[in-house]
Amino acid sequence: MPTRHIVSAFDEQLDILHDLVRQMGVLAERQITDAVAAMTDRDTDLASQVMAKDADLDELERKVEAQTVRLLALRHPKANDLRDVIGALRVANNLERIGDFAANVAKRSFVLQSQPEVSLARSMLPIGRAVADMLAAVMKAYDEDDAETALAVRRRDEEVDRAYTSLFRELLTYMMESPARITACTHLLFAAKNLERIGDHATNIAETLCFRVQGQPLDQDRPKGDGTAEMTVMPD
Amino acid sequence: MPTRHIVSAFDEQLDILHDLVRQMGVLAERQITDAVAAMTDRDTDLASQVMAKDADLDELERKVEAQTVRLLALRHPKANDLRDVIGALRVANNLERIGDFAANVAKRSFVLQSQPEVSLARSMLPIGRAVADMLAAVMKAYDEDDAETALAVRRRDEEVDRAYTSLFRELLTYMMESPARITACTHLLFAAKNLERIGDHATNIAETLCFRVQGQPLDQDRPKGDGTAEMTVMPD
Repeated sequence: MPTRHIVSAFDEQLDILHDLVRQMGVLAERQITDAVAAMTDRDTDLASQVMAKDADLDELERKVEAQTVRLLALRHPKANDLRDVIGALRVANNLERIGDFAANVAKRSFVLQSQPEVSLARSMLPIGRAVADMLAAVMKAYDEDDAETALAVRRRDEEVDRAYTSLFRELLTYMMESPARITACTHLLFAAKNLERIGDHATNIAETLCFRVQGQPLDQDRPKGDGTAEMTVMPD
Repeated sequence: MPTRHIVSAFDEQLDILHDLVRQMGVLAERQITDAVAAMTDRDTDLASQVMAKDADLDELERKVEAQTVRLLALRHPKANDLRDVIGALRVANNLERIGDFAANVAKRSFVLQSQPEVSLARSMLPIGRAVADMLAAVMKAYDEDDAETALAVRRRDEEVDRAYTSLFRELLTYMMESPARITACTHLLFAAKNLERIGDHATNIAETLCFRVQGQPLDQDRPKGDGTAEMTVMPD
């Protein structure tokens, strides 16, 4: 956050807001890692924990909203400060969505455990690691008001989209070869899509941060690498 | 919106904000209907139109954000007015996401057109109609500050989730029987999921409206009917 030399009542309230957002970031990152571990290790205890912890993220988001409303009503922030407050609300909203996607990945572990094992499930690990890293980097950038790093995170999303697109193709091919694996593969397809969406939300956070630092929205279109909506795979 | 007897500069600015949100609602509803028609009629011209029009929704959302920031910076709204302004931002955000999901449904028409026809694609129509109706009802409630109708919309989401769950099961079964249809069915699965997500966003709008009218978040958990994350289908 920008350094301030005179600590005002406004700054104190803003620190509370930033701290809540920071807590959400740490928790969301752990939720992603645990959800993917639960899925690949077929660990339903861990999956249950991730699903239960999602309520903590929801609760933190409600606290961010309440603190935002308090700040706006009592302190009438302007210009940079106003962008900062609105930005925190937006970041919190994205983190809450990330939590939902992680919980949904965890939930699918139960089905996967009941189904024949699909070795492609392990391909979820590098994608999960990539989006967890993106989130950690963008939250660090948020803490340090670092628009450069935020832009670098935005570029990494393209890699994630490419990894997702490639896994999507492999899963479709595998389903055609092994109809008995269709249920498991469908859940893996949705889990992979959830991870790809987490990457999008990390990218949204990066864009919100650039807006806060630079005072205007990014004009270039976001790089796009997810080509699955157009994908066809032919049976042999 | 709440009736005001003395028209102030604040009210005028608020009317501009509400009008932008209203325009987004009308456009988002049409995008849903056209996207589903494009998919079921295999009409790629209509699909292209839907994809192009998504930029209009994005542009309207940017206008809502700019107007929100202007109102907060210049007018310092409090209590109900502040909730109204923050609510408009949230509703616009949900409408923009609805637009993204509709565009994604439209985009999948191109793959479906290149694939053997799947008669189950027509099951998308009632789900599309249901979520478009939910959105129309909640936007009317938004216009009339009608929390009762908003709550009724929230309850309809359960129906949508059930219809989606049932289609999900049928599509999985069909894929097992006809591996040559796996590509088409996978795109239908994702399109159906997009429609289900649109229902969730209409529900978010209903909850935002209840918060605006009643001044506190709804405490009951949202009714949940989407059981697909736990679903297994066995091959014969």
